[in-house]
Amino acid sequence: MNDVIKLLQSHRSIRKFSDKLIDQETINEIIAAGQAAATSSNVQATTVIQVSNPQTRQKLAEAAGGQKYVESAGAFFVFCADLKRSAQACELQGGAFSQGMTEHFIIATVDVALFAQNCTVAAESLGMGICYIGGLRNNPVDVSEMLNLPENVYPVFGLCIGYPDQDPEVKPRLPLESVLMQETYDADQLEPGIAAYDEHIRAYYRSRTGGKKDSCWSEEMRALVGKESRPHMRGFLQSKGFTMQ
Amino acid sequence: MNDVIKLLQSHRSIRKFSDKLIDQETINEIIAAGQAAATSSNVQATTVIQVSNPQTRQKLAEAAGGQKYVESAGAFFVFCADLKRSAQACELQGGAFSQGMTEHFIIATVDVALFAQNCTVAAESLGMGICYIGGLRNNPVDVSEMLNLPENVYPVFGLCIGYPDQDPEVKPRLPLESVLMQETYDADQLEPGIAAYDEHIRAYYRSRTGGKKDSCWSEEMRALVGKESRPHMRGFLQSKGFTMQ
Repeated sequence: MNDVIKLLQSHRSIRKFSDKLIDQETINEIIAAGQAAATSSNVQATTVIQVSNPQTRQKLAEAAGGQKYVESAGAFFVFCADLKRSAQACELQGGAFSQGMTEHFIIATVDVALFAQNCTVAAESLGMGICYIGGLRNNPVDVSEMLNLPENVYPVFGLCIGYPDQDPEVKPRLPLESVLMQETYDADQLEPGIAAYDEHIRAYYRSRTGGKKDSCWSEEMRALVGKESRPHMRGFLQSKGFTMQ
Repeated sequence: MNDVIKLLQSHRSIRKFSDKLIDQETINEIIAAGQAAATSSNVQATTVIQVSNPQTRQKLAEAAGGQKYVESAGAFFVFCADLKRSAQACELQGGAFSQGMTEHFIIATVDVALFAQNCTVAAESLGMGICYIGGLRNNPVDVSEMLNLPENVYPVFGLCIGYPDQDPEVKPRLPLESVLMQETYDADQLEPGIAAYDEHIRAYYRSRTGGKKDSCWSEEMRALVGKESRPHMRGFLQSKGFTMQ
């Protein structure tokens, strides 16, 4: 295993950061690494808003459900799926933007994630830690207003980047054979994979918390997908022009 | 700039692969690097189907609009957004899966892209090249049937991985200041960014093709977002349970 793969496999989210700042040149290098990721038909649908203002950071931390590290990370970014730029380019050429296509929504969302993951790897290669903040989607209207996001742009997630002030363990994942299938989808593989992982992650939580946390993945999934999740997202996206045609 | 960031910034898609095969141990290492990426609430919504059967590869190449490198790459994978596994885990705990939430669709799609980009970086660190195949969404029904994809699973894209038999240049991107904004969204930045990039990419295309290709980004965007794109995606996703509630 080479050093890059070791780096990738040693990822864990960091939620406690030191005061050490990150200079803008380094940030630009990280963002340029993000830009270098593949992009569907070269659409480059990612816009990153770097938020440094402490008051805005505080409000964003609240909007994300009280995630204090949004304030304390060395740098904080909101990753936006941006079809406004390509729409404007299209219109400059006399075209008419075909607004609201589901396909364009997928393209833009995937673009943002590929870009952000490159930023993550770049930051981690420099000894920094990161935490994705999906919690911004708790209050997407507030986030959009704070950042002045126009139509055809939506905030996909935030990203904290900074120097770690903690050293958490790497969290175990599902067994490889559960997520890598051969030739066709093998539904029979699901249940044994879930059972094996439930046992593994329960032991991991217990050992990390001295027995206090005693849950497993399927219990977590019951809590996560066994109820409506951010039901406002549909209406919010529609209000931004992502009408899913 | 360190070696990892150099690697990230030197990405280009590879569409011509040598015959050199990739052993399964290496593939497993690449997929394990994908698994190590961040995942929203640990949902781990990615399932990767490794397709080795030459006939299926041929059919997938056709489904993607005749992309021959889907057949010739050392390895080919279909990256699926998979909520079936978490739904099943939820049901094993006596819960009822809340099907069709827009938010779950976003979570799963982002998960897949973060996972895949880690695989990309891992493969490139080993001297391989990659090409994402969004073209699978040209014919998602056929792809789903070929791979036996169940409800709550959809193919986001394919990924070719293999040893390169070409050495294309790195494609220039939009100016950094167009995609990295400070504090709030700056719509006034769009037009100068587009103009600068149009000039840059036109020169790049001309020089690469001896003047034959003479187009720019905004022309490409007119062709891409100035018309309906894969309008079947909405209905396809609905048929798989992704009803965007």
